[in-house]
Amino acid sequence: MQVVLPNLDSRIGDVEGNARLIGELAGEWGHCEVLLTPELAICGYPPRDLLFREGFVARCEQALESLAASLPPEMLVIVGCPRSHDSDGGRCYNGLAICRGGRVEGWACKQLLPGYDVFDDDRYFRPGVGGHWIEHAGHRIGLLVCEDLWQAGDVREQTAYEVDPVADLVQAGCDLIMASSASPFMTGKHLRQVDTVSRLASRHGVGIISLNRAGAEDDLVFDGGAIVADSTGEVLRRRQFPSQSDSPLVVSIDSMTEVRQTPCMDENEQRFQALVNCVRGYVHKTGNKQAIVGLSGGIDSAVTAAIAAASLGPENVTGVMMPSRHSSAHSLEDARALAEALGLASCVEVPIERIHEATRSTLLEVDHGSSLEEGSLADQNIQARARGLILMAISNAVGGLVLSTGNKSELAVGYATLYGDMCGAMAVLGDVLKMDVYALAQWMNEHPREAGFSQPPIPVSTMTKPPSAELRPDQVDQDSLPPYELLDEIVRRWVEEEQSAGRIIDETGADAQLVSRILGMIDAAQFKRDQAAVIPKISRRAFGRGRPWPIIGRPGAAPVWIPAATSA
Amino acid sequence: MQVVLPNLDSRIGDVEGNARLIGELAGEWGHCEVLLTPELAICGYPPRDLLFREGFVARCEQALESLAASLPPEMLVIVGCPRSHDSDGGRCYNGLAICRGGRVEGWACKQLLPGYDVFDDDRYFRPGVGGHWIEHAGHRIGLLVCEDLWQAGDVREQTAYEVDPVADLVQAGCDLIMASSASPFMTGKHLRQVDTVSRLASRHGVGIISLNRAGAEDDLVFDGGAIVADSTGEVLRRRQFPSQSDSPLVVSIDSMTEVRQTPCMDENEQRFQALVNCVRGYVHKTGNKQAIVGLSGGIDSAVTAAIAAASLGPENVTGVMMPSRHSSAHSLEDARALAEALGLASCVEVPIERIHEATRSTLLEVDHGSSLEEGSLADQNIQARARGLILMAISNAVGGLVLSTGNKSELAVGYATLYGDMCGAMAVLGDVLKMDVYALAQWMNEHPREAGFSQPPIPVSTMTKPPSAELRPDQVDQDSLPPYELLDEIVRRWVEEEQSAGRIIDETGADAQLVSRILGMIDAAQFKRDQAAVIPKISRRAFGRGRPWPIIGRPGAAPVWIPAATSA
Repeated sequence: MQVVLPNLDSRIGDVEGNARLIGELAGEWGHCEVLLTPELAICGYPPRDLLFREGFVARCEQALESLAASLPPEMLVIVGCPRSHDSDGGRCYNGLAICRGGRVEGWACKQLLPGYDVFDDDRYFRPGVGGHWIEHAGHRIGLLVCEDLWQAGDVREQTAYEVDPVADLVQAGCDLIMASSASPFMTGKHLRQVDTVSRLASRHGVGIISLNRAGAEDDLVFDGGAIVADSTGEVLRRRQFPSQSDSPLVVSIDSMTEVRQTPCMDENEQRFQALVNCVRGYVHKTGNKQAIVGLSGGIDSAVTAAIAAASLGPENVTGVMMPSRHSSAHSLEDARALAEALGLASCVEVPIERIHEATRSTLLEVDHGSSLEEGSLADQNIQARARGLILMAISNAVGGLVLSTGNKSELAVGYATLYGDMCGAMAVLGDVLKMDVYALAQWMNEHPREAGFSQPPIPVSTMTKPPSAELRPDQVDQDSLPPYELLDEIVRRWVEEEQSAGRIIDETGADAQLVSRILGMIDAAQFKRDQAAVIPKISRRAFGRGRPWPIIGRPGAAPVWIPAATSA
Repeated sequence: MQVVLPNLDSRIGDVEGNARLIGELAGEWGHCEVLLTPELAICGYPPRDLLFREGFVARCEQALESLAASLPPEMLVIVGCPRSHDSDGGRCYNGLAICRGGRVEGWACKQLLPGYDVFDDDRYFRPGVGGHWIEHAGHRIGLLVCEDLWQAGDVREQTAYEVDPVADLVQAGCDLIMASSASPFMTGKHLRQVDTVSRLASRHGVGIISLNRAGAEDDLVFDGGAIVADSTGEVLRRRQFPSQSDSPLVVSIDSMTEVRQTPCMDENEQRFQALVNCVRGYVHKTGNKQAIVGLSGGIDSAVTAAIAAASLGPENVTGVMMPSRHSSAHSLEDARALAEALGLASCVEVPIERIHEATRSTLLEVDHGSSLEEGSLADQNIQARARGLILMAISNAVGGLVLSTGNKSELAVGYATLYGDMCGAMAVLGDVLKMDVYALAQWMNEHPREAGFSQPPIPVSTMTKPPSAELRPDQVDQDSLPPYELLDEIVRRWVEEEQSAGRIIDETGADAQLVSRILGMIDAAQFKRDQAAVIPKISRRAFGRGRPWPIIGRPGAAPVWIPAATSA
């Protein structure tokens, strides 16, 4: 029995287009016995409240019926599709339609509905009850949807489910389990999923095939992962981040003994691939081709531009240098060296001095002069916002999306200016801690070919100079922040692990007052993150949808409130 | 038996402060038999992911224990408090602690966990099982938390729950039910809640006391509502939007026969009160006193400034007029007349010409001149963003939060500039359709005293002139939009009711192409709304948390994608 595991990037809401794509795949691979598609392949995942729009689920079901009628009748095609339910106030099932013989023969519906992190399955779906299996080509195949298989084990969430869909299918005599997922990427998750599949297969003595969707939607990226384990738990095939043009992975269940896997990616390569996919998904799916990145000569903008170039092609990336009166000479040199190493379409220099001065002189006339002195918060923010104004004007004038360059450490403590450097369609590094930005740069420089560059892209001096916002004379980040090694550790524990202040102070050994100040800054900067650009999620807990947080709360660790609309 | 229904605005995360407040209330009203507090009164509602922070729930429980020990021992005090549960992966109960005799005597826990609209109770809470009641002062009192009583009937959501906590308590012989809520305001919801209470009381022959929290948190506002019905269903007491200084409502259960209710507010007054509370909550709870509003002379900025003045006092509101080369003379006159009628602290004029010109000349030098001609999209957005730059600089220089002025109709179709007129801490009218903005203005002019003004605040010519963004010569909104009566109807149906395009075309009789174009604009503008300021929810479905929507989806009605970072 040959099972086809496609590299499928369904588009949210493009029901007919997605159905056509599945039909084409089935046509091309119709000599195989089974085609598996990812969770909700017909409507794209996550459809969010689009599921509630009148007629939407019906439209999916109609597209499914037409598709089923057009498929090779001998082939078993499993199609992820919402299934309507009349009496549960708009909630439907998250189903897998079993298509065979020109029709929809049955359904397997997702039983476990995760509600942690970015998931709110319970808002949209009613739980399926009991496992569903089918006899095909001499196998009894059990069908599962995403969490039914993972049961939160792949993300280290403590979640207690009352049923075990895997055990139920084994109990029912299945010799093979096929699981369809739309499981958002998280650094390291793929290997935990491999472990989970292997462990479950060997514990239950059952073969397991797992397929994840590919591509990206807004803040979520999917690794197109495929994992195939035999009933001893041996992982025979494994795929992660196939390239867009890759053919499906086709596995011969009955004759496959030799282990053949793609090599395992290290964490930096995983992050790189995830961000490249996210930028490409956002830019292309919004009908754009080009991106615009402000280049400061610093590490964040360099890495952002490199990822943009790898995603879209350097010919589609415009670098914009916007020096101020406080910019150092090396900033422009480093930015130019970067643009040259990447081969960017263009790298323009647009000084902000004139806008900065026009804003100052305009405001001085209405008597706010005393607060505008050089180095003041207001003056720093005017500069950052003048840059935002320029980037957005270029975007409006010539097309292309602005990518913002702030990293997770900065967004955490509010070291970013709303409507300034936070301008953009996507905050590419918004879930990458500062030290991980350096590690990503290092990885790209050490593996330029794997990353798609002809030479190491990041200038050495960008890697080695002390980080600075250059918004006042001789400013460096460490004037007001602890060393990034420590800051990152605090952010990781407070934001990603939800640790208490006491534990962080105890376990890091850092100064209690310093830690309290940083934690207060993190909580108080929520108002900025609430208006941030889309942040691709690559960690356990990214800022954004997966971390709903009160803006005006006083969570205790924040002794003073930092007023809105201020920057560090 | 006397029951005290306080006007309580707990602060999220300020556990010790909230406990102190409850203790003070109990001390002051200790001669009464019962003090009821709202849902999660001890930690504030909604705490969101703060509930997951290590030690947070334990901190609430400790504060509760100390509080219970300090309360008048004869009094029954019902305290909303999360209750920990060891074995459910971080989820706790949403509990009501029964405090009497100096200790926590028992708990009633929320059974029905809503997951629609802004609610994600299932993320945080495990369901309580079975009803809980207590004997006190000759009554058997059943305790419920919010949705246990409302069962989605107050918001017209179709939600099917499998248990009926009200019936269970009646079955157990309760003669009185007390329900604690933190039920977010929605226009018209209070009267539906009154109906629900009356209907349930008469159907079951049981007295019902319902208490809602007061104040506002981020995008949610609570009406401090109290509803008391006897066992015939007669509503004897009713309160909505008490003023901050109002004493608790004290009801004498055994001797209360005469109906005494606050007068019923019409929809405009409800909206006005909700927005006033929301602005005050946000500004004050973030440690600010002042607000800054850009005044265009148009209706949206006029109503925003009036609400700010009513919330914070006119002495704490600064109006900023920012004329451009396209501004008409009447704009400045109308803005000045408004500022005078409201008695604003100041009304400054800050022309944007110099910044506009500096931006143009800077960009012309790097050869983007051809796209910058007057009236172009880029040129319009530069003007809007120059205004944002000025408002934020004033905010940084002199303190105070910027309030943005766009309405729901504009946010729907993307008729707003990111980082321009969308700048601000709160988009005060972001859930008010354009025609409702006019109605609100009309109401304020007809009821200046109820609204807290000494004279009708909104200039007549602001009410009567055609709306215009004044970003190019002779521009009016209806150049590119249908009449607001129709636009509002389309937005209401598509966004608030989730109706299909077909139904909207059929039922409004509007031109199919026009409707399709508008629906496409609404879906395509999600990227802007995703970066919008906090929008106070006052309708059935506001933009924001309660309407998660894919940004890069192609939901079918949108034939062409409108590129990011553009404005109408």
